[in-house]
Amino acid sequence: MMEKRGQLLGIGVGPGDPELLTLKALRLLKAAPVVAYFVAKGKRGNAFGIIEPHLDDAQIRLPLVYPVTTEALEPPLSYEAIIADFYDTASAVIGGHLEAGRDVAVVCEGDPFFYGSYMYLHDRLADRFPVEVVPGVCSMLGGAAVLRTPLVYRNQSLSVLSGVMSEDELRGKLAQTDAAVIMKLGRNFAKVRRVLDELGLADRALYVERATMANQRIVPLAEVDPMASPYFSLLVVPGRKWRG
Amino acid sequence: MMEKRGQLLGIGVGPGDPELLTLKALRLLKAAPVVAYFVAKGKRGNAFGIIEPHLDDAQIRLPLVYPVTTEALEPPLSYEAIIADFYDTASAVIGGHLEAGRDVAVVCEGDPFFYGSYMYLHDRLADRFPVEVVPGVCSMLGGAAVLRTPLVYRNQSLSVLSGVMSEDELRGKLAQTDAAVIMKLGRNFAKVRRVLDELGLADRALYVERATMANQRIVPLAEVDPMASPYFSLLVVPGRKWRG
Repeated sequence: MMEKRGQLLGIGVGPGDPELLTLKALRLLKAAPVVAYFVAKGKRGNAFGIIEPHLDDAQIRLPLVYPVTTEALEPPLSYEAIIADFYDTASAVIGGHLEAGRDVAVVCEGDPFFYGSYMYLHDRLADRFPVEVVPGVCSMLGGAAVLRTPLVYRNQSLSVLSGVMSEDELRGKLAQTDAAVIMKLGRNFAKVRRVLDELGLADRALYVERATMANQRIVPLAEVDPMASPYFSLLVVPGRKWRG
Repeated sequence: MMEKRGQLLGIGVGPGDPELLTLKALRLLKAAPVVAYFVAKGKRGNAFGIIEPHLDDAQIRLPLVYPVTTEALEPPLSYEAIIADFYDTASAVIGGHLEAGRDVAVVCEGDPFFYGSYMYLHDRLADRFPVEVVPGVCSMLGGAAVLRTPLVYRNQSLSVLSGVMSEDELRGKLAQTDAAVIMKLGRNFAKVRRVLDELGLADRALYVERATMANQRIVPLAEVDPMASPYFSLLVVPGRKWRG
């Protein structure tokens, strides 16, 4: 007799503050026999830290340990090939649990479909298993909240950009949007800062590191050390105020 | 003796599914002596519907009834003047509670700083009273979740656009982004659809009405009736899949 297949759950757990978990995420997490989470080598994992207090001993913990993060690799190694292998393997392990009839909750920081690593598992598994996705509060909304700044008014446009983009691309996109959020700063901070200065946007820009996390840090733009900006930092260029 | 001033709380309650409320929103809502919510004339209010089951009888309900929504107005009436008056008055009422030492939770659908009406009260009150803002799951993330589509991969850019924009502006912005979400469709649906067709994006676009609400409706783009698309509908043009 075929056992019933398990359900794949992609669960956003919010930007860092454990209280920004939704009621739905909490209910589904508590009921999941297997809870998978992404984690860097030797780290505990931000998403896991948020949910761990809610789990009981009977639930299977399944850490998915990134083989590489952002370090430089010597050829013939490539980030793309290594990370694709990693997602293939992780999907096979999760697929095994699903085949055996066990639901698997994959937790990720922020929202699963907004730059979340869950997407790469989803694309490998969603055509074979029942799926439920629980949206979460993403880091850019957590950032705007702690910076106390409205992000976009009325019919303004918002561009979400990555600090990894080329200077030209950043300039082009920032020049024609009403509001912007720039993520993945880290080593790209100095480049992004130059573009903001050129476009006269530096006065409007606000900066936060690890928004809503316990070690959150809000720093005036002029005082940010470009060599020490962490990956989990973001810049917000709010839309111009509309009186409403 | 001066009484302690109340705190202004801007609380995102998520896109519609009552379970997409965060633990933090719930805790602060239950503790607030005054709960304010925006509502259209003669309606119950989506945000209020989400939170009402959590309130007790002692909490003061403060409906903020929009004097106009999207209907056409005869000169000398203007939407801008009427709505600015409305926010002035609402801020004065809320300010009265805050002066008297009562915390006021202003709830809004989605996220308070992502096109939320709370912003207009915030801009009028935040320099005079202590403020806390609780981010929420916004409708675009709720939309992507129910459409089961990853929104943006890795370093892709995302543009959040309003259907109210001119055809030229929509075309320009859609032509140079990796992924897009178009909100406020309603009467603008036919125009947006034309631009998607011109740019060859219609095959990638997904459409949902009232995402995560009880009356949610997912419709293939080709089958959407341009005359019957509600205000709370959105289009998602997901970023091109990256294998990860």
